[in-house]
Amino acid sequence: MLLQILNIVGIVAFAASGALVGVRKQLDVFGICVVGATTGIGGGILRDLLLGVHPPDSLSKWPNITASVATSLVVFFAHPVLDRIWSAVVLFDALGMGLFAAGGATVALQHGSGALGGVLIGATAAIGGGVIRDMLVNEVPLLLQRDLYALPALLGALLVVVCESIDLPQGISLIAGTAAATGLRCLALWQRWQLPRARVKD
Amino acid sequence: MLLQILNIVGIVAFAASGALVGVRKQLDVFGICVVGATTGIGGGILRDLLLGVHPPDSLSKWPNITASVATSLVVFFAHPVLDRIWSAVVLFDALGMGLFAAGGATVALQHGSGALGGVLIGATAAIGGGVIRDMLVNEVPLLLQRDLYALPALLGALLVVVCESIDLPQGISLIAGTAAATGLRCLALWQRWQLPRARVKD
Amino acid sequence: MLLQILNIVGIVAFAASGALVGVRKQLDVFGICVVGATTGIGGGILRDLLLGVHPPDSLSKWPNITASVATSLVVFFAHPVLDRIWSAVVLFDALGMGLFAAGGATVALQHGSGALGGVLIGATAAIGGGVIRDMLVNEVPLLLQRDLYALPALLGALLVVVCESIDLPQGISLIAGTAAATGLRCLALWQRWQLPRARVKD
Repeated sequence: MLLQILNIVGIVAFAASGALVGVRKQLDVFGICVVGATTGIGGGILRDLLLGVHPPDSLSKWPNITASVATSLVVFFAHPVLDRIWSAVVLFDALGMGLFAAGGATVALQHGSGALGGVLIGATAAIGGGVIRDMLVNEVPLLLQRDLYALPALLGALLVVVCESIDLPQGISLIAGTAAATGLRCLALWQRWQLPRARVKD
Repeated sequence: MLLQILNIVGIVAFAASGALVGVRKQLDVFGICVVGATTGIGGGILRDLLLGVHPPDSLSKWPNITASVATSLVVFFAHPVLDRIWSAVVLFDALGMGLFAAGGATVALQHGSGALGGVLIGATAAIGGGVIRDMLVNEVPLLLQRDLYALPALLGALLVVVCESIDLPQGISLIAGTAAATGLRCLALWQRWQLPRARVKD
Repeated sequence: MLLQILNIVGIVAFAASGALVGVRKQLDVFGICVVGATTGIGGGILRDLLLGVHPPDSLSKWPNITASVATSLVVFFAHPVLDRIWSAVVLFDALGMGLFAAGGATVALQHGSGALGGVLIGATAAIGGGVIRDMLVNEVPLLLQRDLYALPALLGALLVVVCESIDLPQGISLIAGTAAATGLRCLALWQRWQLPRARVKD
C-alpha cells in the first residue's frame, strides 16, 4: 500500500519536473502534457520492461497516467506563481528520483531480480524518466550535466537492498532509501559538491 | 489479413518519412536506409516490447524489414522528383501515424492489454517511430514542435478501442481509427491549428 | 565459455569508447563512469530486451557491470597517456561493435530468433551501445555520421548465422563474424571509403 502511494507521489514529482521543462521550452499545452506524462511514467515503464512485466503497469492502470496528466495540467495553469522555474524542476526531479530509486529497487526484489538487479534496476527507474525528458527536448541529460546524480540514485537503491536483506519492514526500507537518495542529491546541490573532472588534451 | 496489409502500408509511410529526413540531413545511402528502416519498424518494435512479444515481429519476419529498406532505397533514388521534401516528410508521417495508432491499438487489445493499454500502446506505436527518427538525427521531435500530434494518435487509438468494445468488425475499427487520426492531423496542419502555449518568466 | 569471454572483451571496448567520449565532454568522474557503463552494457541490454531475457544479464550478473565501471575508471586516470582521444574512441568502438555483432547473433540464435532475427538482433546489439552513448551526450550518432557503420555490423552478424547454419563450431563463427565486422569497419575508416550521398534541393 505504502509502495503504491509513494509510487504515485514519485510520478507526480517527475511529471511536475517534466511539465516545467516543457513550459521553459514554450511548448503548447499538449506538448507539456506529453513531456510531463512521459517523464512521470517513463522510469516505471523502463523498470517494468527490464523486469518483464507486460504490459507495463503505467500503461495498463489508470492512476499512474491520470496523476501524470493532471499534474502537467496543474503546472500549465499554475506555473506563473513559481518565481524560479529551474529551481522547481531540479527539486521535483530530486524528489521523484529518490522515490523511484527506493520503489524501483523494492519492485525489482519482489520480481526476483537479486541484489545486483535490485540496485541497478532501482537506479535505472530513478534516472530513466529524467533522461527521457531531457532527450525529448534535446538537452544534455541532467544526469551528465550536474554532479552527484547517479550516485544518490544508486545509494538509495542499495540501501533498500541492504534493509530488505536484514528483513527490516518494507516501510522502513522505502523511507530510508528515499530519504538517502533525495537527501544526498539536495545536499550536493546546496553545497555545490562537485566530483573531479578529466583534463582534456585533444 | 487487413491488419497485416495496413501494418505494411504504415511501415512504408514511416520509412519514407525517415528516409526523406536522411536525405535532408545529407546522409549517405546506407545512413538513409538505417534511418528509414528504424523509423519504419521502430513503432512496431516498441509496441511488441511493451506487449512482451519476443522477438518483436519486425525483427523476425521478412516483410516488415524488406518493405522498410526497399522504401528507403526508392526514396534515395527518387527524391529529386519531389519538389518540397519537408511537406512529403510531414504527409508520410501523418499517414504512418494514423495506421500505427489504429493497428497498434488492435494488436494491443488482441494481447489482452485492456482498454487503457490499447489506447496508450496504440498511441506509443504511432508516435514511437517518429520520435526515434528525430532523436537519431538530433532534432527536437516533431511530437513536440508541431501542434496536434499526440492528440490525433490518442484519438485514433481510442476510436479503435470504442469500436471493438461495441463489437464492430475489425475492418471498420481499423479504417475509422486511421481516418480519424490521419485526418485530424492533416486538418490541423492545413488549418495551422495551434494549442495555447505557456507564458514563461524565468 | 569463449562466448562469455568475448562478451566481456566487447563490454570493455565499448566502455572505453564511452568513457573517452565522457572525457572529451569534460564530464566529472561519475559522469564518465555512467556513460562508460551505459555504453558497455547498453547493447547487451537491448539484445536481452528484444529476446525477452528478464532481467537482462548485464543487470543481474556481476562481471558485466564490474568490467564496465572498472574500464571507465582506468580511462579516467589513464587518458592523458593517449595522444589522440578521438582515434581511440573510434578504434575501441570498432572492436566492441564487431564482438557484439558476432556474440549478439550467437545469443539470438540460441534463443530461437531464426535467421533474420539473428542478423538484425546481432546488428542491434552491435550498434545499440554506441547509439545510446551518442544520444546521451547529445551528438548525432557515429552510426549516421560515418560511412560503413551499420554495414559491417550486419555483415558480421550475417556471417555468424551462415556459419551456424552449416554447423561450423561456435568458436569459428564467433571469430569469423568479429573479424569480418571489425575488419571491414577499420578498412573503411583507413581507406576513407564513402557511400554516395543524396543530392538535396529543398
